[in-house]
Amino acid sequence: MPDPYVLVLAGGRGERFWPWSRPDRPKQFLPLARDGRSLLAATLGRAAKIAAPERILLMTGADLIERTADESPRGARVFGESVGRNTAPAIAAAALWVERESPGAAMAVLSSDHAIDDEASFAADFELALAAADRHRALVTFGIPPAGPDTRFGYIKRGEQVAGRLFRVAAFTEKPHLERARGFVESGDYLWNCGMFAWRSDAFLHALETTRPVLAAALHPLRGVAAADFQGTLNRLLPGCEAIAVDYAVLEKAENVMTVEASFDWDDVGSWSAWARRQPRDERGNVVHGQGVVVDCDGCVVVGEGGTAAALGLKDTVVVHTAGATLACPLERSEDVRQVAAAARTEERS
Amino acid sequence: MPDPYVLVLAGGRGERFWPWSRPDRPKQFLPLARDGRSLLAATLGRAAKIAAPERILLMTGADLIERTADESPRGARVFGESVGRNTAPAIAAAALWVERESPGAAMAVLSSDHAIDDEASFAADFELALAAADRHRALVTFGIPPAGPDTRFGYIKRGEQVAGRLFRVAAFTEKPHLERARGFVESGDYLWNCGMFAWRSDAFLHALETTRPVLAAALHPLRGVAAADFQGTLNRLLPGCEAIAVDYAVLEKAENVMTVEASFDWDDVGSWSAWARRQPRDERGNVVHGQGVVVDCDGCVVVGEGGTAAALGLKDTVVVHTAGATLACPLERSEDVRQVAAAARTEERS
Repeated sequence: MPDPYVLVLAGGRGERFWPWSRPDRPKQFLPLARDGRSLLAATLGRAAKIAAPERILLMTGADLIERTADESPRGARVFGESVGRNTAPAIAAAALWVERESPGAAMAVLSSDHAIDDEASFAADFELALAAADRHRALVTFGIPPAGPDTRFGYIKRGEQVAGRLFRVAAFTEKPHLERARGFVESGDYLWNCGMFAWRSDAFLHALETTRPVLAAALHPLRGVAAADFQGTLNRLLPGCEAIAVDYAVLEKAENVMTVEASFDWDDVGSWSAWARRQPRDERGNVVHGQGVVVDCDGCVVVGEGGTAAALGLKDTVVVHTAGATLACPLERSEDVRQVAAAARTEERS
Repeated sequence: MPDPYVLVLAGGRGERFWPWSRPDRPKQFLPLARDGRSLLAATLGRAAKIAAPERILLMTGADLIERTADESPRGARVFGESVGRNTAPAIAAAALWVERESPGAAMAVLSSDHAIDDEASFAADFELALAAADRHRALVTFGIPPAGPDTRFGYIKRGEQVAGRLFRVAAFTEKPHLERARGFVESGDYLWNCGMFAWRSDAFLHALETTRPVLAAALHPLRGVAAADFQGTLNRLLPGCEAIAVDYAVLEKAENVMTVEASFDWDDVGSWSAWARRQPRDERGNVVHGQGVVVDCDGCVVVGEGGTAAALGLKDTVVVHTAGATLACPLERSEDVRQVAAAARTEERS
């Protein structure tokens, strides 16, 4: 089995962390990891346990190439997406790069903006998944044992056990309503789909040709293109590609899909409240970060960057100051911050 | 009777509007007047109804001379206080300037950071007060009919009626407790002491010599000093002056103190909630100023300056963004904002 590759998907915009996140510094660049590193830096730390730097690939927005490269190890390949087309085209392009360099090598696909603390379990699980991907030519997903009936995630229904924590996938389900999610969790047969994968590049591309032939054909010119022309060709082809997530484009329809029941912790750090749950608190339960000041507050999240964020007499409220903008909202509304980010953009334009 | 003078006291720091107010731009410079002008500009507009520009004097912090002069009419005199010594020394110095230029002229003393909308009644009341000050050589205060048992103000007890709305003062009382304030309001005999006055400069200086001879002596070198040397002499003398309010230093002890029951509206705009009461609101009761954005909020005050202030899902909360700092607090806590300003200064120093 050739040495594996890692693809880090780093094209997200993470607007739920507005105004800390900005178009030119989305969520993966924020110091949201428990140790104060950026989520991207922590992800690259985990990637280094799977692959050598020259086999670490990153896909990000064209405008973020430089910032992404700054955080990446020397030798890693950072590709830019001239237009956002969701995960399927990005992964397919990376698989074609792997095919150029090392036909049939296995590749792990990681999200750049999730938090995982147990690096040893992570590395062991990916070793297991990459070996299974090679041996069975399977498309291997990672399933997280659900901590609760979360409605923000898709679920994977476990099927036949292949070996140990490796199962066939019986079904993928989209984000369920709460009642359905409760049933999933109670059944014990469902796992969260965390958007991380392992497969041989040739097996993935073969599946794509079967499930999404138009998309596969659109990217075909990348096959065998010179390394120096790869990015330019990608720039040219991406606008003609369908924007679609890899789950819908490939996994839900492909044969031979497996899942590894993950043994590592996982958090998508999807909101201010999710981040705060992982942070140390003061004696009144406040999370204070950067130039934050709290006076007579309980359970607040106060973040000051480039200036002071001061909260007085508040309870369970997020207060974030950046030089350009401020957010204040109840913690329980932190899932809705994207609405504010959109309203603020409209305001700025007017 | 010589033409009257106006002294505008513009040395306040107004920390209850932090972070909108800053040491280099205190409350009187904020656009808090109903028409969007600064309180100082609105005050100078009223001053112009009493005196010609060259008889308008301003006392401010030495560091604020330039900013104050920028808002003042050409010809007005802006004096700087090298150190803050409260109102008695500032008023005494201005009275000595008046004595130099026009011995025995009457002078009105105005606060720079209060809001008054009815300029015609204001001018008529001051005309009445200045005439009474001249005729009776009285120290005339302005008493505001109380809108409620406010504990933030001192109260003036009306005594014998001199004429119309002009009364002798029976007593000054310091800021009362709530129960006492209720009694004051119910009695109908008490008025709010709003810190505005009218008197002949010679009558005031004579009273000061009687009630506070040490302070009067400390400023004595300003008598007869050349105009060009006035500011320099003041700089030299102020550090040796007692820091004391004119009410305590002079009015509470002087003979022949009167009050005009004001016919104009008056608001000290003492906090974010006081300011908000005077502002237009959206259909959900929010006051949105500058680059403010509200999503699903009720009764909030959202101010964005040099960036966006965004509030989501909040009720009766103040959210203020400036480039350097953010404040978030319940409206009902807006009297306590000075605590936060102090904590933020400590944070900035550390």
